[in-house]
Amino acid sequence: MNLVLSYFWTLTTGNLMFTSTTQIRVRYGETDQMGYLYYGNYALYYEVGRAESIRQLGFTYRQLEEMGIMMPVAELNVHYYRPALYDDLITVKTILKDLPDGPKIQFHSELYNEEGTLLNKGITTLVFYDPKEKKRTNMPQELYSRLSPFFNKDNE
Amino acid sequence: MNLVLSYFWTLTTGNLMFTSTTQIRVRYGETDQMGYLYYGNYALYYEVGRAESIRQLGFTYRQLEEMGIMMPVAELNVHYYRPALYDDLITVKTILKDLPDGPKIQFHSELYNEEGTLLNKGITTLVFYDPKEKKRTNMPQELYSRLSPFFNKDNE
Amino acid sequence: MNLVLSYFWTLTTGNLMFTSTTQIRVRYGETDQMGYLYYGNYALYYEVGRAESIRQLGFTYRQLEEMGIMMPVAELNVHYYRPALYDDLITVKTILKDLPDGPKIQFHSELYNEEGTLLNKGITTLVFYDPKEKKRTNMPQELYSRLSPFFNKDNE
Amino acid sequence: MNLVLSYFWTLTTGNLMFTSTTQIRVRYGETDQMGYLYYGNYALYYEVGRAESIRQLGFTYRQLEEMGIMMPVAELNVHYYRPALYDDLITVKTILKDLPDGPKIQFHSELYNEEGTLLNKGITTLVFYDPKEKKRTNMPQELYSRLSPFFNKDNE
Repeated sequence: MNLVLSYFWTLTTGNLMFTSTTQIRVRYGETDQMGYLYYGNYALYYEVGRAESIRQLGFTYRQLEEMGIMMPVAELNVHYYRPALYDDLITVKTILKDLPDGPKIQFHSELYNEEGTLLNKGITTLVFYDPKEKKRTNMPQELYSRLSPFFNKDNE
Repeated sequence: MNLVLSYFWTLTTGNLMFTSTTQIRVRYGETDQMGYLYYGNYALYYEVGRAESIRQLGFTYRQLEEMGIMMPVAELNVHYYRPALYDDLITVKTILKDLPDGPKIQFHSELYNEEGTLLNKGITTLVFYDPKEKKRTNMPQELYSRLSPFFNKDNE
Repeated sequence: MNLVLSYFWTLTTGNLMFTSTTQIRVRYGETDQMGYLYYGNYALYYEVGRAESIRQLGFTYRQLEEMGIMMPVAELNVHYYRPALYDDLITVKTILKDLPDGPKIQFHSELYNEEGTLLNKGITTLVFYDPKEKKRTNMPQELYSRLSPFFNKDNE
Repeated sequence: MNLVLSYFWTLTTGNLMFTSTTQIRVRYGETDQMGYLYYGNYALYYEVGRAESIRQLGFTYRQLEEMGIMMPVAELNVHYYRPALYDDLITVKTILKDLPDGPKIQFHSELYNEEGTLLNKGITTLVFYDPKEKKRTNMPQELYSRLSPFFNKDNE
């Protein structure tokens, strides 16, 4: 249903993209003595958001690894607007704005608290990597075929 | 001695900046199943680098907090070139390229392995924040007076 | 409903206790290079289990802290039977076997994978602590009154 | 030198054991909003203590893994006496009280702050495991031969 909703949204806005959401509650061990979610722990939230976005396509990141594809991170950019606090139920919105045509894929992450306030924004760039060949590769066809309908103008 | 060396280096290059280095060994619990230092854990290494750079000025971040100053992170940018691996002894180089003149301060971090290969580069922007007044503030005078000699052209 | 079920279960078994369950999916950043959930990260899962068990009583640990009660951990015991792996959906069962009558409270945690296999068992002993008075205290009445019905033999 | 000292100590006390020490400074990201080192993060400190104790024998845990031996944790027991705080320089004392004669090995850990106050004690039981054969194994001979002199009564 989430998929249907996000797809509907892309159609009505005219922006072809793939969006998914998931929720994460801030753990005590993830806070620091400032009482904030530690600045390095947002990376975990983005990771969960990415994994759930792939799962919502009927696929899993674990399956990608079992197929012999790894996805190391090449770049990370984070903007911290307001702190996420202990026990906050954070909504993680994960967005693919472009269908990758090479070895790189870029996920946009937005974190909102329960009042809907934007707390944090991040962009993570990952690389499709074949550890056996020790070189970069392209997105596996199985994943591509599930993603491409979201970026197909003919669907508009 | 570290201070002396880094100061000497800035003088000879003509680039006025403050540089410090520290070393961190990659822990097993910091790796992920790819065998890499997890991409979110570099933030911890930058944090240690920043803390040690302040300590090398004869000051500590703990003292800053005891003076009523907090330094939440506003922005983080990371480039991952090569993975840091378990038990690698990482040299963290922390650089202040500019003496802050407002509430923001920017630390550049560079991580090298034992062969001297650059693995990772990051920029962390933090804000001086007064939690009592609930507003941004400037760098405390105590810290400023220790940093400013590194950026004083008259020393050249 | 979870509460009803767990309460029913205690009634039918005759063991007066309070049980709750929650689910956590293993994150990539929580694994180590062995491909296992890192042994120190089970503590986070127990923490989430404890927090959810209190929430199921209509209360939160955050509220406890707002009331001026902290709950530092005094003791932790963990048995690792089988590893939890990346992307496993872990069921965390949290059990209070005794209603505390002093400053200590003991939570039993059991972790199961999707096949229902017991992976891990832990016992965490926490202390009710008043940071203003700097001394141990008893469980707040608000929490006690919600817990005690589960340990009341008259309900059998 | 550390080795010499610890060996000397075992000789004079008559307790045959292997002891090593290392130091770890508490990171901001390891604290929680209580201002304490998070209770799950002590496991990282024990891990570093174990790794350094093996290194002081002229061996590394990384080498063990390269030889095809893994050491998953079977059991963990922790007593928390006093909190470790941000920026505390913790001395981790790691003790082997017995020379393993089977697939299990037990490390005792003691954490002290700069005043020499005992903060925390832990016991970690690990298993020598051969992932290719998928079964438990004994301590590799290379490690055994380095450890056994510390437990040899003829040295007294």
